[in-house]
Amino acid sequence: MNGSNFAITPEPPYFAVIFSSLRQGEDNDYGKTADRMVELAAEQPGFLGVESLRGTDGFGITVSYWESEEAIKNWKRHAEHTAARERGRKEWYEHFELRVAKVERAYAGPRGDR
Amino acid sequence: MNGSNFAITPEPPYFAVIFSSLRQGEDNDYGKTADRMVELAAEQPGFLGVESLRGTDGFGITVSYWESEEAIKNWKRHAEHTAARERGRKEWYEHFELRVAKVERAYAGPRGDR
Repeated sequence: MNGSNFAITPEPPYFAVIFSSLRQGEDNDYGKTADRMVELAAEQPGFLGVESLRGTDGFGITVSYWESEEAIKNWKRHAEHTAARERGRKEWYEHFELRVAKVERAYAGPRGDR
Repeated sequence: MNGSNFAITPEPPYFAVIFSSLRQGEDNDYGKTADRMVELAAEQPGFLGVESLRGTDGFGITVSYWESEEAIKNWKRHAEHTAARERGRKEWYEHFELRVAKVERAYAGPRGDR
């Protein structure tokens, strides 16, 4: 079985964007913008799913899954996303690391089921 | 600058193991075993770093970074790690998804510095 936090992804290959970040300062629309970005990403062609967590110390990990590199590039070019990223750099993040990776194999457990 | 939660990784390509999991039940040595696995992984050839979070609902994301697929396979075969995985399947996890991915490109921010 699958909790609601898990992304449901197809057989590999597909792509993952691993975004690790440390928040800084006050909310300044961060929470509502983050929710909006997840909602908007889910509407994009090639979006497969997202898994996300943030700790009380402000460190977070968000992994989004995509069918292709082209889908990732198109999402990067989306105007509302571009504006949000700009605010992220200026206002919301102390530091982040963004990694684009090709998922080559995948397993589920404990019994391989979903 | 870089908070202590971030993995310090080299220029791509390298590999990521994305482990998303939902805990179940009591601790049953889970906490100490998880700590020990991070300690042990860090001693393995080809280990680059790890980023990890778990929420209060039991959902967690751990991303470990490795120089090569061979390093990942060697770690998978490690006896103490194999025993821990077996307990994970039987005792600790309601569900998990494990994805092995090749990191193709990476960026840091907000100013590209570390």
